[in-house]
Amino acid sequence: MASHCNMEGNERQAFVDGLIQANRHWTAQGTVATYIPELGKQQPDLLGISICSVDGNQWHAGDWQAPFTVQSISKVVTFIGALLDNDYDTLTKTISVAPTADGFNSIVNLETKNKHRPLNAMINSGAIASIALVKGADMEARFQRVFAMMKAMAGRETLQVNEAVYQSEKRTGDRNRALAYYMKSTGIVTGDVEELLDAYFRLCSVEVNCQDISVMAAVLASDGVSPLTGESIFDHQTARIVKAVMTTCGMYDGSGEFAVEVGMPGKSGVGGGIMAVSPRRMGIGVMGPALDPKGNSLGGWKLLQRLSQACDLSIF
Amino acid sequence: MASHCNMEGNERQAFVDGLIQANRHWTAQGTVATYIPELGKQQPDLLGISICSVDGNQWHAGDWQAPFTVQSISKVVTFIGALLDNDYDTLTKTISVAPTADGFNSIVNLETKNKHRPLNAMINSGAIASIALVKGADMEARFQRVFAMMKAMAGRETLQVNEAVYQSEKRTGDRNRALAYYMKSTGIVTGDVEELLDAYFRLCSVEVNCQDISVMAAVLASDGVSPLTGESIFDHQTARIVKAVMTTCGMYDGSGEFAVEVGMPGKSGVGGGIMAVSPRRMGIGVMGPALDPKGNSLGGWKLLQRLSQACDLSIF
Amino acid sequence: MASHCNMEGNERQAFVDGLIQANRHWTAQGTVATYIPELGKQQPDLLGISICSVDGNQWHAGDWQAPFTVQSISKVVTFIGALLDNDYDTLTKTISVAPTADGFNSIVNLETKNKHRPLNAMINSGAIASIALVKGADMEARFQRVFAMMKAMAGRETLQVNEAVYQSEKRTGDRNRALAYYMKSTGIVTGDVEELLDAYFRLCSVEVNCQDISVMAAVLASDGVSPLTGESIFDHQTARIVKAVMTTCGMYDGSGEFAVEVGMPGKSGVGGGIMAVSPRRMGIGVMGPALDPKGNSLGGWKLLQRLSQACDLSIF
Amino acid sequence: MASHCNMEGNERQAFVDGLIQANRHWTAQGTVATYIPELGKQQPDLLGISICSVDGNQWHAGDWQAPFTVQSISKVVTFIGALLDNDYDTLTKTISVAPTADGFNSIVNLETKNKHRPLNAMINSGAIASIALVKGADMEARFQRVFAMMKAMAGRETLQVNEAVYQSEKRTGDRNRALAYYMKSTGIVTGDVEELLDAYFRLCSVEVNCQDISVMAAVLASDGVSPLTGESIFDHQTARIVKAVMTTCGMYDGSGEFAVEVGMPGKSGVGGGIMAVSPRRMGIGVMGPALDPKGNSLGGWKLLQRLSQACDLSIF
Repeated sequence: MASHCNMEGNERQAFVDGLIQANRHWTAQGTVATYIPELGKQQPDLLGISICSVDGNQWHAGDWQAPFTVQSISKVVTFIGALLDNDYDTLTKTISVAPTADGFNSIVNLETKNKHRPLNAMINSGAIASIALVKGADMEARFQRVFAMMKAMAGRETLQVNEAVYQSEKRTGDRNRALAYYMKSTGIVTGDVEELLDAYFRLCSVEVNCQDISVMAAVLASDGVSPLTGESIFDHQTARIVKAVMTTCGMYDGSGEFAVEVGMPGKSGVGGGIMAVSPRRMGIGVMGPALDPKGNSLGGWKLLQRLSQACDLSIF
Repeated sequence: MASHCNMEGNERQAFVDGLIQANRHWTAQGTVATYIPELGKQQPDLLGISICSVDGNQWHAGDWQAPFTVQSISKVVTFIGALLDNDYDTLTKTISVAPTADGFNSIVNLETKNKHRPLNAMINSGAIASIALVKGADMEARFQRVFAMMKAMAGRETLQVNEAVYQSEKRTGDRNRALAYYMKSTGIVTGDVEELLDAYFRLCSVEVNCQDISVMAAVLASDGVSPLTGESIFDHQTARIVKAVMTTCGMYDGSGEFAVEVGMPGKSGVGGGIMAVSPRRMGIGVMGPALDPKGNSLGGWKLLQRLSQACDLSIF
Repeated sequence: MASHCNMEGNERQAFVDGLIQANRHWTAQGTVATYIPELGKQQPDLLGISICSVDGNQWHAGDWQAPFTVQSISKVVTFIGALLDNDYDTLTKTISVAPTADGFNSIVNLETKNKHRPLNAMINSGAIASIALVKGADMEARFQRVFAMMKAMAGRETLQVNEAVYQSEKRTGDRNRALAYYMKSTGIVTGDVEELLDAYFRLCSVEVNCQDISVMAAVLASDGVSPLTGESIFDHQTARIVKAVMTTCGMYDGSGEFAVEVGMPGKSGVGGGIMAVSPRRMGIGVMGPALDPKGNSLGGWKLLQRLSQACDLSIF
Repeated sequence: MASHCNMEGNERQAFVDGLIQANRHWTAQGTVATYIPELGKQQPDLLGISICSVDGNQWHAGDWQAPFTVQSISKVVTFIGALLDNDYDTLTKTISVAPTADGFNSIVNLETKNKHRPLNAMINSGAIASIALVKGADMEARFQRVFAMMKAMAGRETLQVNEAVYQSEKRTGDRNRALAYYMKSTGIVTGDVEELLDAYFRLCSVEVNCQDISVMAAVLASDGVSPLTGESIFDHQTARIVKAVMTTCGMYDGSGEFAVEVGMPGKSGVGGGIMAVSPRRMGIGVMGPALDPKGNSLGGWKLLQRLSQACDLSIF
């Protein structure tokens, strides 16, 4: 099976084209996210994939150029920022690295667990707390620091916030306000909550495509080194922590199933994207706005499952 | 024992004076609430009691004239407003009448129970939702309606909001913001959350004394009729619902113990007050800012326990 | 309205007959308990009522003679036994008196609350723990002590365990085994769990009728004195505690609604019975095996609601 | 760093000897499990390691020959048995593959999650349910099937149940009884609970040493092939599922931290052992009965952390 991954250039292109063709039907079984009204306008039958090897070779197929908002995939970048700006032991006093069977916006554990700290940085509460841990003179500076990291990882300076989605999230983000105010009441975050959430909503609303995600993933695959420039964007140790937390927590309460079925560090967003990392081999970005009930791209998941089997990408 | 309550006027006064003397030592075992900073400035050794019979006779002892903020006792008045302005069956689709073993500011049940409705109107989430159910053109009108009801029940038009406490609550009320935004995210409340909370914080910050509370309680004791004017302020059925919910839910997670030890419908506030109702006999207001770990006035609870035993006030 | 209760004997009989007629249709909206298979054989359209005043006058209507198993109403008697045999402060170190919004067989709070003690004696965990607190050389002696108390309260020495129901409960009582073994693992109960559960299942399986329940309730109404013999079966203080706990916890997660709609200390059983107490006035026993989703007799609840309104029996 | 792993034989031996020396002091900071009384007799300062490469080379150091009971590491073998005997989709209808932030013996999720299925096979509830899914004419046959698999994986036919530990677990395993009876009440398991638990307790009580664990781990490392005999004991797909679930759930609520700090599929037991798998490279068995508060061997964890760093064994 792994032979698919050793094919010549043309054969590989045919392989990824075939993947899209064989799996597009899955998009009909999911549902576009509607709790952020602007996301409800997405076209449900899109499906795309981009692959970027650690040495910079790229393959694309399907709607890989279609723009979508990065949403929770931004949590990976924010977490990298928080790790770079804080000692690991200090960081984990504020945010744990514990998996959870609860959903991405759950508030229960903030009350029932003793430490009053978010379980991990891949769920909403932990991501909001992560932003507050990024260094910066003010919240705008923190946003810019994470946004700059995202651009550097994607190797694209032209990334922009989708204003309509950002405004839509801001208008309807009351569950996130509940999480943030709860954490303020227990001292996990300080300062102005609306400013903090503003940074969170803007980071979630950055518009990307499959290629961007695949390049970002390839940086993680090569432990911090850009596959495009060879520049070291962050250190090896940070990359390992992030991939470990992505593996145990990246797909929300579907993380366990993703580990079994795909077997790679992954992170999904309700915009329909999934980032997957094949350590020391490649980064993968898929998109498909039709989601499964847990909020993960249904078609994207299937693409990754087939690709992982065909190329033996499981880390296990 | 019940003979104490059939004494002549002078003997009764001696009895309540003695109650204060015998129980003031309890105040040393409690702690003044500090999560609202302005409340932390209260004098911990105050202890007072006022009794108002359904025919308007009054007895007072100790620091009954000392002002304190009504805090959660206002929830009783808000709930009355919500009951008057809504059909009971409609109301209970938004707010349940279920007791809970969780604390007054718990958020867990909003997520884990199916209906996404606050458990009852005596805890913070339910009280905030109650305000939204009071009729009014805007939030200011809703506040005024409940505030007017509070004045009418206390028989005192001069009741005022304590500005310092109100500002303190507003500044530090992030746990309540979490509750309110959570409920907004699930559709329990609508509109501007800060305005809603503003009304909530102002109602909690109304300054009262033991006499005010005792007269308010006497209105409930006589099923809605003012003991001072004979005016019917609300109907018999509303009074019964309110007293039932006070009995099962009024003392937070201490409600079960209060039923056993005192045996009257009661409602406490972190300002140190407790309202207790002896149906068809009297209303009682006690104050003592030193609280037990569940947020109930320690000295006030003991006063009520002794009084209930001496006068056989238990409804059971 | 209260006039119904001051009627002459014949009129009263007509009143209770009318109650049954007017409410029997409710039985069609409930469901017979099936988790204990033997209970599933009950006739769903039965409906009966017995009233016993504190001075021993009795009225009956409908299927008041139909036998049913006492089920959770036995928890009231077990709790009386535990209170008589233990200092209150000691008892509440093992079993709390806290209401709960969770169901009668919930195990969650045994793990999530700090003290590892059942929330109250009216839910399964607390009742099982109560049996262990009754004095006796062995479990058989504890069973006999509670059973004797039940007979004394009912004024009927011929009460018997329904063997078929007992065996059915024993065979299928795995949820109760889970509760008991959990409590054994945390030290709340000691000794042989199967023996303990055997006592529990036998007490639940005692066969009674509405008259038995009404006489038992009348003993509580008169603070421990039998309305038939004038004998004091237990003390005033015990009666008050039991009625307080029945009010806040007796109808499981329907306790709050029962307080609002009926307004009396009550205890229901999945056999279809409900015991209600009008302090210093009367005891009431109703039966109707068709239950609402919370496990309370649907028709029985309605009977009590109408009776309470007609005779102003609310304690509030 | 990885150079340590490319050393000649003598140097490698020196390296693992040094590991033990450098980390034995950690054993003083942990505590021997006492909830199974027999385990409380273990010597707390033991520390040992065995490594078995996929081509059968072995290194050992410290107390690698000291016997300890396999405890929860047996869950890995039971899960393999359940996977071999059931279609994956069927299996996951009974047992999920979801990580959890709750402890190994938590019962909460069995009640609060909708599906009434254990979250994963690496915690007690899921392991007990797994045994019931292994094919066999009776419970004895199921036990023998899993035990035989354990012997085959360890390459040692002389493995035996430690009778004293088994009896101790059986006597005190009430929390597991609670889990099992709860699952019986919801239909997750059927049949005789004591027989089921008997198999569970016996499997937990099998006596092993570090070498046994390392060889078992090496079978997983080579996707089912014994490093000693070259025999395929189970298929590639089963191995992948097991390693994925070990990674997300194997160290209880410490799974997230283990992924970050060690970065290998792992499984610990309260007997003090930890199994770790370096896919396609080696299996590792460590032991150290002094545990951290989450129930994982403190010294064993540190050994694995140092080894993983030195040899770059992280799968991320």
